[in-house]
Amino acid sequence: MTQVTELQHVDGRPLTDDELAGLDAYWRAANYLSVGQIYLLDNPLLREPLAEEHVKPRLLGHWGTTPGLNLLYAHLNRVIRARELDALFVTGPGHGGPGLVANSYLEGTYSEVYPYIGSDEQGLQRLFRQFSFPGGIPSHVAPETPGSIHEGGELGYSLVHAYGAAFDNPDLLVVCVVGDGEAETGPLAASWHSTKFLDPARDGAVLPVLHLNGYKIANPTVLARIPDDELGALLRGYGYRPYLVAGDDPAEVHQLLAATLDRATDEIAEIQRAAREGGDTTRPEWPMIVLRTPKGWTGPKEVDGVPVEGTFRSHQVPLAATRTNPEHRAMLETWLRSYRPEELFDAEGALRPELRALAPTGERRMSATPHANGGLLLRDLELPDFRDYAVDVPSPGCATSEAMTELGRFLRDVVAANPSTFRVMGPDETASNRLGAVLEQTDRTWLGTTLPGDEHLAPDGRVMEVLSEHLCQGWLEGYLLTGRHGVFNCYEAFIHIVDSMLNQHAKWLKVTRDIPWRRPIASLNYLLSSHVWRQDHNGFSHQDPGFIDHVVNKKAEIVRVYLPPDTNTLLSVGDHCLRSRDYVNVVVAGKQPALTYLTMDEAIAHCTRGLGIWEWASNTDGEPDVVLACAGDIPTLETLAAADLLRTHLPELKVRVVNVVDLMRLQPDSEHPHGLSDREFDALFTSDKPVIFAYHGYPWLIHRLTYRRTNHANIHVRGYKEEGTTTTPFDMVMLNDLDRFHLVIDTIDRTPSLGVRAAGLRQRMVDARLAARLYTREHGEDDPAIAGWTWPGRAGGAAPEGDH
Amino acid sequence: MTQVTELQHVDGRPLTDDELAGLDAYWRAANYLSVGQIYLLDNPLLREPLAEEHVKPRLLGHWGTTPGLNLLYAHLNRVIRARELDALFVTGPGHGGPGLVANSYLEGTYSEVYPYIGSDEQGLQRLFRQFSFPGGIPSHVAPETPGSIHEGGELGYSLVHAYGAAFDNPDLLVVCVVGDGEAETGPLAASWHSTKFLDPARDGAVLPVLHLNGYKIANPTVLARIPDDELGALLRGYGYRPYLVAGDDPAEVHQLLAATLDRATDEIAEIQRAAREGGDTTRPEWPMIVLRTPKGWTGPKEVDGVPVEGTFRSHQVPLAATRTNPEHRAMLETWLRSYRPEELFDAEGALRPELRALAPTGERRMSATPHANGGLLLRDLELPDFRDYAVDVPSPGCATSEAMTELGRFLRDVVAANPSTFRVMGPDETASNRLGAVLEQTDRTWLGTTLPGDEHLAPDGRVMEVLSEHLCQGWLEGYLLTGRHGVFNCYEAFIHIVDSMLNQHAKWLKVTRDIPWRRPIASLNYLLSSHVWRQDHNGFSHQDPGFIDHVVNKKAEIVRVYLPPDTNTLLSVGDHCLRSRDYVNVVVAGKQPALTYLTMDEAIAHCTRGLGIWEWASNTDGEPDVVLACAGDIPTLETLAAADLLRTHLPELKVRVVNVVDLMRLQPDSEHPHGLSDREFDALFTSDKPVIFAYHGYPWLIHRLTYRRTNHANIHVRGYKEEGTTTTPFDMVMLNDLDRFHLVIDTIDRTPSLGVRAAGLRQRMVDARLAARLYTREHGEDDPAIAGWTWPGRAGGAAPEGDH
Ligand SMILES: Cc1ncc(C[n+]2csc(CCOP(=O)(O)OP(=O)(O)O)c2C)c(N)n1
Ligand SMILES: Cc1ncc(C[n+]2csc(CCOP(=O)(O)OP(=O)(O)O)c2C)c(N)n1
Ligand SMILES: [Mg+2]
Ligand SMILES: [Mg+2]
Repeated sequence: MTQVTELQHVDGRPLTDDELAGLDAYWRAANYLSVGQIYLLDNPLLREPLAEEHVKPRLLGHWGTTPGLNLLYAHLNRVIRARELDALFVTGPGHGGPGLVANSYLEGTYSEVYPYIGSDEQGLQRLFRQFSFPGGIPSHVAPETPGSIHEGGELGYSLVHAYGAAFDNPDLLVVCVVGDGEAETGPLAASWHSTKFLDPARDGAVLPVLHLNGYKIANPTVLARIPDDELGALLRGYGYRPYLVAGDDPAEVHQLLAATLDRATDEIAEIQRAAREGGDTTRPEWPMIVLRTPKGWTGPKEVDGVPVEGTFRSHQVPLAATRTNPEHRAMLETWLRSYRPEELFDAEGALRPELRALAPTGERRMSATPHANGGLLLRDLELPDFRDYAVDVPSPGCATSEAMTELGRFLRDVVAANPSTFRVMGPDETASNRLGAVLEQTDRTWLGTTLPGDEHLAPDGRVMEVLSEHLCQGWLEGYLLTGRHGVFNCYEAFIHIVDSMLNQHAKWLKVTRDIPWRRPIASLNYLLSSHVWRQDHNGFSHQDPGFIDHVVNKKAEIVRVYLPPDTNTLLSVGDHCLRSRDYVNVVVAGKQPALTYLTMDEAIAHCTRGLGIWEWASNTDGEPDVVLACAGDIPTLETLAAADLLRTHLPELKVRVVNVVDLMRLQPDSEHPHGLSDREFDALFTSDKPVIFAYHGYPWLIHRLTYRRTNHANIHVRGYKEEGTTTTPFDMVMLNDLDRFHLVIDTIDRTPSLGVRAAGLRQRMVDARLAARLYTREHGEDDPAIAGWTWPGRAGGAAPEGDH
Repeated sequence: MTQVTELQHVDGRPLTDDELAGLDAYWRAANYLSVGQIYLLDNPLLREPLAEEHVKPRLLGHWGTTPGLNLLYAHLNRVIRARELDALFVTGPGHGGPGLVANSYLEGTYSEVYPYIGSDEQGLQRLFRQFSFPGGIPSHVAPETPGSIHEGGELGYSLVHAYGAAFDNPDLLVVCVVGDGEAETGPLAASWHSTKFLDPARDGAVLPVLHLNGYKIANPTVLARIPDDELGALLRGYGYRPYLVAGDDPAEVHQLLAATLDRATDEIAEIQRAAREGGDTTRPEWPMIVLRTPKGWTGPKEVDGVPVEGTFRSHQVPLAATRTNPEHRAMLETWLRSYRPEELFDAEGALRPELRALAPTGERRMSATPHANGGLLLRDLELPDFRDYAVDVPSPGCATSEAMTELGRFLRDVVAANPSTFRVMGPDETASNRLGAVLEQTDRTWLGTTLPGDEHLAPDGRVMEVLSEHLCQGWLEGYLLTGRHGVFNCYEAFIHIVDSMLNQHAKWLKVTRDIPWRRPIASLNYLLSSHVWRQDHNGFSHQDPGFIDHVVNKKAEIVRVYLPPDTNTLLSVGDHCLRSRDYVNVVVAGKQPALTYLTMDEAIAHCTRGLGIWEWASNTDGEPDVVLACAGDIPTLETLAAADLLRTHLPELKVRVVNVVDLMRLQPDSEHPHGLSDREFDALFTSDKPVIFAYHGYPWLIHRLTYRRTNHANIHVRGYKEEGTTTTPFDMVMLNDLDRFHLVIDTIDRTPSLGVRAAGLRQRMVDARLAARLYTREHGEDDPAIAGWTWPGRAGGAAPEGDH
C-alpha cells in the first residue's frame, strides 16, 4: 500500500486582471480567425451584416478541437515570453488546422512566408477564403502550415514525433497536444513510455497535454469516461506527474492553466538542472497536463434543438446550413461577434498592438521556430570514408562475409563522428541484425532501472531499441523533421507495421518539395535485414517482402529502393543514403555470411550505375541467348549458381548476367528520375531474348516496373510467391521456384532453341531439386554441396553458416 | 489523495504436497518436451548417453519464454479441472511454440490430430525431430498447433485477439499471456483498454497474464524496469486489479500462482454473477496477473562463462554448439536430465497416468477446445434477402442514392437476425460512413461511464467503435477465428494501419487450408468508405487507395476485391461477402449521394459475372473502336460522362463501356480462381483496340493484373497518382487526369484514326478542364453542370451533395 496522488490541481491565480484580459482577448482573436476560416468568403471583420454571399458554399473543416488548441497556444506564448523558451508545438488533432493557421497569422509568420496574406482586412479576407478552398490550403496542420512538423491527419503519432524532436535538443520544449480520441490509438498508447528513452541531461523536454474534450467524431472517448483516479493512475503508470486543468468558465480556466503551466515549466527546469548540474541520472517524473474543457467551447450551445457545445456534434461544422438557412446564418454572426472582433483588430484589420505584444518575437514564435523547418538546421553528416570498410574480394564469388556486420562498423564510426545528430533505431534487433559494432562506440538509450549484468544501456546511448516499430519510425521522423539524421533497422516482414506512417511521411516530403520556404531534410533510411529468404528461426509469419511494393506506390521523386548483392555494394549504398535528402531509402540486405562478388571499386561503379552486366559471370561479350537478371542477395546467389550450371552443361549457350542494385532503374525514365532510357534498357536486357529475372520480392513488382519495355513479354520473373515455413535456406528458394535448378529449367523452357536439346539437363535439374529437398528432410540442413557453392575455378570459400 | 493498492499479492498455500509435486512434475514434463523439440533428433528419453548424432544440426527455436508458458499451462489445467472451466489459451510470445506443442502432446490432442506422433517413444522421437525441421512444423504457435488461434509471430496482437474470442462467449475464459516485450508494442498498449468494451453479462472473461520475464531479444523490457508502484498504477489505470506472482523457487511460485489463479477465477465468477444475476451493469475491475519469473527458468545458469538463465541470453537457444562442443552437449544432457524424464514417462514412453490425470479431458483440454478451431462452431448467418433493400433505378444514371446508407439498412437487419454472432467494427466512423441505420437496431458497445445526452451507448451494443484500427481488426480477427461473423468499416486510407495484421491473418488462412482438421471460418470483410476520391474535408493525408495493392500480394485463394459502382451492386456484393468463408474481402464504396445504374436484377447478374459490358452505355453491339473500362464508383461516373461526350461529339466512334466489380476477374485464370480465361478477356477488351481504363486506385495495379493479356499494350490506365489536397470532388479527379474530359482526350490520343479528325474536340476538352478548375477557384465548388451530370435522355437527377 502506498499513498499516491491522482490527478493534481495547482492552486494559485498568477494572472493579473490585465494579463487575464489580454490572454482572453488573444484567445478570442484566434478563435475568431478560426471560425472565419471555416465559414467566411468575405466581410472578414463583420463590418457589414453577414449575408449569404459572405459564407462559403462548402463548409469543410473541424471546429471542435480548435478552441482548446487556441487556448493552449495563447498561454504558451505567455510562458515563452516570460521564460524565454524555445518551444515547438505539436498538434495531435491536426484537423484543428484553422487554429494553427490563425496563430501563425497572429504572430506575423504567416504573412512573412505568404506575403499575399497581409496583416490587413484584405489579408484577412484572403486568409479566410483560402482555407479548405480549391487552390487554397488544406484543412489540416499540413506542411503548408508554418511551425508544423506534424500534420495530424492520420491520428496517433503526435507524441512520438514530439519525442523525436526533443532528442538532442537540450534547449527545446516540445509541447504536444494529444487528442483524447487519438490517445486510443496503439501508437499513441505506446508513445507515453518514451519517458524511458529521454535523457534529461542531453535531450529537450516534452510537455504532453492530453486534450480531454471528451469526444472524438461521434463517440465519447475512453479516457474521458474513466474515473479521475483511474486516469491519474494510468498517466502516473506511464511515468508522468499529471496536472488537471478543468473547467468551462474562461476566467477560471485561464488562471488554472497559467498556474499549471508555470508549475510544469518550473518542474521541467528543475529536472533539467538536477540532471545537468546535479548529475542526477535517475529517470525523472515529468509533468504533463490534462486539459478538460468542452469540445467546441465558445461555439453554438445548441443548434436545431440539440446541444452542440461540449458534445461530439461540435467536431466538424456546428452550423451546417449557414448559406441557405437564415437562422443558422444569424447564429453564425452572433457566434463570430461574440469574440468582439472590433476590440481585437484595428481599423486596417491588423491585430491591435497590445495583443500583438503578447506573442513572442522572431524565432521564439512557435510558428517561426527553425526546429519546425528542420532543413534550416540540417548539417551534413561527418562521414568516414566508406571505402575504408571494404572487404577484400580476391575474386568474385569465392569468399564470404557478413554484409550487415561490415556496415555496422561503418555505422559505429558514423555515430562516433556525429555524437549529437545521428541515431540508430530498431525494435530490439540491432544486435541480431549484426549491427552490433555500433555498441562498441555507444550504448542503447535507457532511462529504466538497470541491474548488474546489463549490457550497453545508458541514458545517453545513441541506439534506440524498443519493441515498437511505430516508436522507432515516429521517433526517427521527429528527429529528421527537426534537422537531424538516422537509420531504422528492422526485420523486413515487420516493417509493414509502419506502412501507414511511411505513407504520411512520404506525403509530407512530397508536399514540402513544392513549398519554397521548406528546406530539404535528411532522408528516412530503412535498413531491412532478416529478410524473407532467411527466416530460418521463424518461418512463414516472418516472410514478407512487400514493403518495397508499398513504397513504390509513393511519388517517384521520393522513393529509392536498393538491393545490394554483397558487402561492398551495401557499404556504397549505405554511404549514398546517408548523404541524400528528402527521400525514403529502402535498403534490403542479408545478415548471414554470404559470398562477396565485387571489390570496392567495382562496387562503387556498379552502385553508381545502379545495375550492370557482370562480365565475369557472363560467357559472352556480344549478344546473349539468354539474360539472367537478379536483384537481391539471395537471388543473385541462385542466379550465379544457375549461370555456373548453364556454363558447365550448356557451354555453347550465351549467357549474360545482369545484376540490379537500384530497383528504380528498371522503370522508364519518364516515370522515375532513376529510370533507364528505353535504349539503355534494351541494350542491357535485349529486345527479344528471354530474360530470367530472379527477384528478391513479389515477382509482380518487376512486371509493374517493366511493362512498358520493348522486351517485356520475354521477361520471366521468379520471386517470393508467398510460400514458406520454418525450413532451410535452400528449401525456401525451392518452395518459391527461385532456386538455381529452377532457374536453369526456366532458361531451358524459355529459350526456343533449347527445348529438345536440353531435355536431359532439364530432367537432371528436376532430380536435383528432389534430391536437395530429400537431403533437408533427412539431415535437417542443406546439402553442403549446395550451401557451400562458390563461383568455380577458384579456391572454395567457407560454407555460409546458419542464421542466429 | 486516495489510498490505492499497487500490485497485490495473494497469501495462502492452497496446494497439498501431492498437488504441488504433481504440478511440478507436469511442468517438468512440458519443459522436457520443449527442450527435446529444440535440440533432439533421437534418443528422446535419454535411454542412452547423449551423442552427437542425437542432436539437431541446426538449432532453431526459442527457449526463454517457454518455461513460463508451461508453468502457467500446468496451473490452468488444475483450475480448469477444479472449476470445470472452458478455457482458451492465447500465447503472446508465440515463439514459445515448443511449449504449446508439448502441452498439446501431453494432453493427447496432438496424437489425435496427428496420429503419426503417437504416445510412445517413437512418437516422442518424431515429435522432437519435426520441430523447426524441414518438412516438419514451424517454430511458432502456428495454425498447425492444436488449441491456437494466434501464431504470435508478429508481436502485439495477443490481447486484442483474446478479447475478440471472449465477445459473445459468456462461458469462456480466455487466458492471454502477454510478453513484457510484446507489451511495448502500440497495438498491445492499446488493447488493455478493451475492458471498456467487454460486457460481463454477455461476454466471456479475459485473464491477462503479463509475462514479466524481464527481457526481449537482447534488451530488458520497459515494464520490467519501472518500479512496482508505477507498473501497478499503469495496470490499474488500464482498468485491472493486478496480482503479482514473483519468484524463482519453483515450490514457492507454485503455491503463489495457484493461490492467485484461485483468487482471479473467484473474482471473475463473482463479477459475472453480479452482472448476470445481480444486474450490475457497471464496468468491473477485472483481475489480471503479473508473472515475474526468470527468462529461461530451469535452463542452463551459465554458458561459456556468462549468465544465461534469467537474462536475455536465454531468448533463443542457450547452448548453441551442442553438436560440435562436447561440453555444451554435456550441459544439454544435464539440463534434460534435470527434469527427471524417467519419473515422467513410462517404459513405453507414454506420460505416466497420474500425470495424465492432471490434465482436463475432452474439449476441456485447452488444446482441444472447439473455440480454437472456430469453423467447428461456425453457423451460417441468418441473412435477410438483400434484394428487399434495392433502390429503384428507373433508368441508368438518372437517380441518386447513398450506397452505404442502403447497405446500412441491410446490416441493421443482419444485426437483428443474428443477435450474438455478428458484430460491426469501426474507428468511430460508422455514422460518418453512413452506416448509421445499424444504430436503429443496436447500440455501440460501451462500458465507460455515460452522461445525459449520450447516444446509442450500451454494454451490449453490437457496434464496436474505438479510435484504433488495430483494435477493430484484432477484435474482429479473434471473433472470426472463434467461429463468428463481422464487418470492419474504415476510411480507405487508414486501413493501411493494419497492413501487417492483414498479412498475418491472410497467412493464417492460407496455412489452415492445408490442415484438414482446421475448419473454414467466416471471411474477414472490409468495407472501405470515405475513399480517396471523396476526402473533401480532409485532403492529401486521407488519400491512399493502396490497401488493394497490398492485399493483392497475398495468396490468390484468399483475397477478393470488389469495387461496386452503385447501390444495388454494393448490396449484392455485401450479401455475397457475408456468406463467404476463409477469404479476405475488400469492398470499396463511396458514401456520398451518387448516381445509380443497375436495377437489382441487373446488379445481381453484373456482380455474378464480376464484370461486363454495359450495353446501354455503349453505342455498338459489335466490335468497338475503343473500350472504356472502369472500376470503382467515381471512375465509373467519369467514364460514363466521357462516353456521353464521345457519343455526342464523335457519334461515329464505336464505344464499348465495360465495368469491373470484381477486380480479380482481370487476372488470368491461372493466377486467380476468379480470373477470366484469355478468350473471355479478349472478347471483352478486344485483342487490338485501345482500352481506356479508369481505375479507382494506383493505375499500376491494373497493369500488374493484365500484363499477360493479349491486348495489354493497348491498355491505358488512369487512376490515383498521388496527387491530392483539400479540394472539390471534380478537382480531385482532374488533378489525377481521371476526369471525363481527360478520358476523352485519352481516347482521342489512343485511337489511331481520331488524331487529326478530333483535334477540335480535344482542344475543347482541354479548355473544359481549365474552365472547370477556374470555376472551383472562383466559386469554391464544382460547376453544377459537371456535378449534376446524369446519363442523357432521361430526367435529370439531383446534383450529388457534398461530403460530411
Ligand atoms: C488513425 C485515424 N483513424 C481515424 C481518423 C478519423 N478521425 C478524424 S478526427 C477523429 C476524432 C479525433 O478525436 P480527438 O483525438 O479526441 O480530437 P478532438 O476531439 O480534439 O477533435 C477521427 C476518428 C483519423 N484521422 N485517423
Ligand atoms: C512486431 C515484432 N517486432 C519484432 C519481433 C522480433 N521479436 C521476436 S521475439 C522478440 C522479443 C519478445 O519479447 P517478449 O515479448 O518479452 O517475449 P519473451 O521474453 O517471453 O520471449 C522480438 C523483438 C517480432 N516478433 N514482432
Ligand atoms: Mg477529443
Ligand atoms: Mg520477455
